[in-house]
Amino acid sequence: MGIAEEMGSKQRAISVSQFFEKNRHLLGYDNKAKAMLIIVKEAVDNGLDACEEARILPEIFVGIKQLEEEKFEIKIRDNGPGVVKEQIPKIFGRLLYGSKFHRLRQTRGQQGLGISCAVLYSQLTTGSPTTIVSSTGDGKTHKYQIRIDVAKNKPMIVETNVEDSEERWHGTEVTFTSEANYRENKQSVLGYLKQTAISNPYADIVFESPNGRVEFKRGLYRLPPEPKEIMPHIEGVELGVLMRMLGETKARTVQTFFTTEFSRLGKRSANDILLKAGITKQVDGRPIPDVRLRPSRVTDEQARDIIHAVKHVKLIRPPTDCLSPLGMNLINSGLMKELNPEFVASVTRPTAVYRGWPFQIEVGLAFGGSLQAFNLLRFANRVPLLYQGGVCAITKAVAETDWRRYSIEVNRGSIEEPLVIFAHMASVWVPFTSESKEAIANYDVIIKEIKLALQECARKLSVWLSGKRKRAMLSKKKSIFELYAGETAHALSTMTEYPKEEIKQKMLQIINEKWEELNGGETIEEVEGEDQDSGEGSGESDSEEGEPEYSSAG
Amino acid sequence: MGIAEEMGSKQRAISVSQFFEKNRHLLGYDNKAKAMLIIVKEAVDNGLDACEEARILPEIFVGIKQLEEEKFEIKIRDNGPGVVKEQIPKIFGRLLYGSKFHRLRQTRGQQGLGISCAVLYSQLTTGSPTTIVSSTGDGKTHKYQIRIDVAKNKPMIVETNVEDSEERWHGTEVTFTSEANYRENKQSVLGYLKQTAISNPYADIVFESPNGRVEFKRGLYRLPPEPKEIMPHIEGVELGVLMRMLGETKARTVQTFFTTEFSRLGKRSANDILLKAGITKQVDGRPIPDVRLRPSRVTDEQARDIIHAVKHVKLIRPPTDCLSPLGMNLINSGLMKELNPEFVASVTRPTAVYRGWPFQIEVGLAFGGSLQAFNLLRFANRVPLLYQGGVCAITKAVAETDWRRYSIEVNRGSIEEPLVIFAHMASVWVPFTSESKEAIANYDVIIKEIKLALQECARKLSVWLSGKRKRAMLSKKKSIFELYAGETAHALSTMTEYPKEEIKQKMLQIINEKWEELNGGETIEEVEGEDQDSGEGSGESDSEEGEPEYSSAG
Repeated sequence: MGIAEEMGSKQRAISVSQFFEKNRHLLGYDNKAKAMLIIVKEAVDNGLDACEEARILPEIFVGIKQLEEEKFEIKIRDNGPGVVKEQIPKIFGRLLYGSKFHRLRQTRGQQGLGISCAVLYSQLTTGSPTTIVSSTGDGKTHKYQIRIDVAKNKPMIVETNVEDSEERWHGTEVTFTSEANYRENKQSVLGYLKQTAISNPYADIVFESPNGRVEFKRGLYRLPPEPKEIMPHIEGVELGVLMRMLGETKARTVQTFFTTEFSRLGKRSANDILLKAGITKQVDGRPIPDVRLRPSRVTDEQARDIIHAVKHVKLIRPPTDCLSPLGMNLINSGLMKELNPEFVASVTRPTAVYRGWPFQIEVGLAFGGSLQAFNLLRFANRVPLLYQGGVCAITKAVAETDWRRYSIEVNRGSIEEPLVIFAHMASVWVPFTSESKEAIANYDVIIKEIKLALQECARKLSVWLSGKRKRAMLSKKKSIFELYAGETAHALSTMTEYPKEEIKQKMLQIINEKWEELNGGETIEEVEGEDQDSGEGSGESDSEEGEPEYSSAG
Repeated sequence: MGIAEEMGSKQRAISVSQFFEKNRHLLGYDNKAKAMLIIVKEAVDNGLDACEEARILPEIFVGIKQLEEEKFEIKIRDNGPGVVKEQIPKIFGRLLYGSKFHRLRQTRGQQGLGISCAVLYSQLTTGSPTTIVSSTGDGKTHKYQIRIDVAKNKPMIVETNVEDSEERWHGTEVTFTSEANYRENKQSVLGYLKQTAISNPYADIVFESPNGRVEFKRGLYRLPPEPKEIMPHIEGVELGVLMRMLGETKARTVQTFFTTEFSRLGKRSANDILLKAGITKQVDGRPIPDVRLRPSRVTDEQARDIIHAVKHVKLIRPPTDCLSPLGMNLINSGLMKELNPEFVASVTRPTAVYRGWPFQIEVGLAFGGSLQAFNLLRFANRVPLLYQGGVCAITKAVAETDWRRYSIEVNRGSIEEPLVIFAHMASVWVPFTSESKEAIANYDVIIKEIKLALQECARKLSVWLSGKRKRAMLSKKKSIFELYAGETAHALSTMTEYPKEEIKQKMLQIINEKWEELNGGETIEEVEGEDQDSGEGSGESDSEEGEPEYSSAG
């Protein structure tokens, strides 16, 4: 056997479970404290997604119990619609399986990896199966104990049974036994739940931590509008995907293929594209579609021409009702309540598009008050991003903004002000830099949108800051007047023989009147933007804006 | 149909090709200049790996031709052993397929993803198949044109043929047609090849770029020692994997399972583990293995006890001949030739272990001379890491080192000296933070090892710097003496009537003698560490150390 043959004989397929088992750090499982956070995060995100899809106000329970020094029982329960029993083993016991990957919709989960990898990690570190209890509200409760067959990437059912439920409850409860560490800091389960409560104020969250019970009560009793599922936009469809779609479509002509399988692509635009691509002909000044051309007959060369033509035809942007941004009211009130700053401002940008996928950027700034230093809070589809800030598009946009233009002090790239930046990307597909979904990839158009939002907010802050600084100057002048009022009164009293105290009181009165006049002349917005709203997608925050209460009963 | 049923009906499996097609940024394909780099990198890394495994001195050709504004033909050829024809479609047309994933060996590739994802990206962006031409030296040359069936993650052969080769050549040539951009900077193909030439000085690399031909000639004519394949070390085997191994082993007893399927685990250690785990019994002071216990009969509880026992038994570390570090000579001479500094020092640390996988850290420091500013060069298994420095364990270790202790100026976390840090991690399994393999995950033990290497090097630099600064002070004193020599000579000449010039010359002579005496007293190493070597694994650099020549003939 030659060397090439010998090397060939060693080639083997790798199951996706094997891949992620060996590369568990790709999903963020590179230390035990982070492992705890990720397991909770995947299950809570799934619970919130399920509740929202079924239009149920979410009630989430998270329970963490220490079993041994580095071994914990981690339980997450939601009041969602439940999982039908046939799907339970696959959803929890198979990597790359789910409902969100193939649909263009704003959801927290998207990859079909998170929850099954939590099962994988648990069995890898403690050898324990994961227990799933679920009911769809049909009076039956299904219980499964599941492991993953790593070589085959398939579920193995360790135990299963059905019980009649006493109440018509619905929901899902997952219990992991995992190697982990429990911490309480910004990058922990507590920090994640706290930030989750801010960005999902319609959810009730109860957390039984090893240190006691914490409740995040909902401040809103209405779900945000349901983000609609959309079709792909042709601008973002890459050649390889277009060729595949052409081969698989049931449409009988290329024109109907365009108008039925793409978002907001009408007959006129479809014809424009076909004309530009040289596929239809211009007869009597009007494009005549080549009706004989079936999608499956489009050559690779023609597909290439279509992609090229798309760049030169004016198209309608993708719809925005697939997105559900937080809205300015929610961001402002969230920042005010949680951080108690002197000033807040926020911006929800119009919808933009990357690779054909719509997205929306929102930014809030909080300044002064209880704030001590600079802090950046990152969110994607309402999920707080707690790690890998260094490679995130949000961090990059913040670093590339010229803060000095807005009277914000920057020293060697570090913002040196009591400033908190809140930034949220809502999209039907967030491009994360890794499977652990901790940072947003550096697409230029995304960075640009974040920068525009930051600039817009920073202008408002800058106006407020200059007012604040003007007032500070006036206030200094006033205190100097006040300081000398006593002495001047004494001198005047000696000259005029008026009582000294009377003169002094009169002088102070004049100073104060002048002061009020000066200050009344410039109304400075303390909380800015409350009367505006981002329009579609954030209507929920108009009437019932609020902030979840954060009460700790340890 | 209830809501749970409706949601269940939307659940689907996702093929790994679909996953990476949609998430191509995970492999680094988030911009066109980077896409160019990654395609070249994956193919060159594979070529170097194949040559080394077949013990062939590598000759690598990279050719980039611009076809349209953002469309390029990218060709990479090696003189490796070639690929047997049955394997060509699978290796290039199937994600998660390869020879390196299941073997513990120091190789550049490890995941079975890189080259097939380059094929996937090319077909996605240009619709073009990838052409592979290969011969194993048997007089036949096989040519394949391949696409990937994304839904099935399987190769589709567009065209194939066999030709009789005129010469008995062997090797592989891959030609991609891809959307890309060509740049020439640190993070480009040119920058990558330049750094690759430094860390692989036994390779000849020819680059036909759109701007002309560049050659990196080999400076060494011997391959580094072949890194040996090893078995897993029991310290790094996690419970889930141990349970699987127990179920799959052909060993008849647990003791033989230990001694045959793990690295450096002898009978005595095996018995110690079994004793500590309570599986064997102590009889007359000697452990008696329970010979009846077959591996498949070990309970989950016993497996847990074994993992626990392993932590309390003193075990021999994994062997180091699976690693092939560069060695201090190679690092020093590489840094000297490429950067022309005033001072270099380097360190190759002893082998350490993370998750049971051996690794070795090497660090080199270059200071002064032609260097203008701080720069950090990161490598993993001889491959330069050009992106995502912000999340890399190397960057973290550099940031956590207290450089001021070594007389290195640091201002707000930034090193402000003409200093280049070279850091290399060699391992049988490098834990990258993403599939794009651009940064090393933050395992504590890895960061610790890098810090130790940095500190060791920094101490050497610090000694040299203090010598340099002492000399600078003496030199200043000397120039003051010289300055006043003329005047003093004039005064002495007036008093003694000796000729002024003679006195001045005599004085300067005394000053210079004293100067030499002072300097001779302390021999300062200009290039440090040349006479030492790291021992095993870097013997190749003793006699024929050198640096590839870097000639550009544009």
